[in-house]
Amino acid sequence: MGRQGILFVMTGASGVGKDTIRQAALPDIDNMLYSISATTREKRVGEVEGKHYYFYDKEKFTTAIDAGNMLEHAEYVGDYYGTPRQPVEKALAAGQDMLLELELVGARQVKEAMPDAVMVFIAPPSLVELERRLRGRGTDSEEKIQKRLARAREEIKAVREFDYVVVNDILAKAVDEFASVIKAERAQSQYLTDKDIAAFLREF
Amino acid sequence: MGRQGILFVMTGASGVGKDTIRQAALPDIDNMLYSISATTREKRVGEVEGKHYYFYDKEKFTTAIDAGNMLEHAEYVGDYYGTPRQPVEKALAAGQDMLLELELVGARQVKEAMPDAVMVFIAPPSLVELERRLRGRGTDSEEKIQKRLARAREEIKAVREFDYVVVNDILAKAVDEFASVIKAERAQSQYLTDKDIAAFLREF
Repeated sequence: MGRQGILFVMTGASGVGKDTIRQAALPDIDNMLYSISATTREKRVGEVEGKHYYFYDKEKFTTAIDAGNMLEHAEYVGDYYGTPRQPVEKALAAGQDMLLELELVGARQVKEAMPDAVMVFIAPPSLVELERRLRGRGTDSEEKIQKRLARAREEIKAVREFDYVVVNDILAKAVDEFASVIKAERAQSQYLTDKDIAAFLREF
Repeated sequence: MGRQGILFVMTGASGVGKDTIRQAALPDIDNMLYSISATTREKRVGEVEGKHYYFYDKEKFTTAIDAGNMLEHAEYVGDYYGTPRQPVEKALAAGQDMLLELELVGARQVKEAMPDAVMVFIAPPSLVELERRLRGRGTDSEEKIQKRLARAREEIKAVREFDYVVVNDILAKAVDEFASVIKAERAQSQYLTDKDIAAFLREF
């Protein structure tokens, strides 16, 4: 049997650039499966069902929670976000690496359920800059922006719970660092199998 | 006070491509100090004192060992190799990251003396390929080649003592992985200082 897949969890405030970093890094990373979350929040302009999120209504979401079919779930600014459990467990068992993008509460639940998960925190260079980006995005009401900023201020205090911190100041640098975390984790000696070593020696 | 420097140790058989990987990766890695080893082995054509090695005679080398001035030292194929201790300790204390390129015996001594050292093993894709590279280099006698291959066969068994394994099959991929290890280690949350977090929050 080969190695288990590695589970990567990326977390960071809304507006910090998680989607941008992921979309820019993944073409450089072969064989990484990105897990699509389920959410009850409203679809934003341009978002596609099954690509950006699975859009659930609240009843469907709470039923899935009660049945134990959510690996993690969180409520954030009045909406549910969550990760269906079975596809993740199946992929990891088959040796497939996976990437989850989660809010802090959900990230903590995954770390608790799967202690080997590699936790990556995407941080803005400062809260001032984060506020500028949130306003620039133009998708949130003033009230939502204030809630997101308050949440970001709390989240940064949890940064030491994560294995890695990628500061998204210069985007290209952040993308390179994020990709580096994935490549370095895959190069860890713990993933070398006895079969790998035997093959190396047998060829002599 | 800022963070301590990170000490990276790279190890791998002669002929595996350590120098090539390091020289290709370091221009992409800012602020990395490469430690020059001392050795008693004969200078090869093109090697420069103080750039490739400090070339010591055996008396000078053993005096330095006895005085405790070597962080590590090893005998390999009849010659001594070692790392002067003081420049490394001084650089790390000043927050400077350093890279050492060491034989297995020396790498183990450094890990013992400095348990936080990040250990990277550079592996050939196979012993057959390593033999091909050693012969292609044309610098060693048949006897030395056989000794190096025997050593490589032993070394691969120690691979789990290292944090990372970079297989030098396709050079560009190995260079990228090696650079990724350095960038990922630097992104670890343990290196974030309380001052970093306070600065982030104060700007609000």
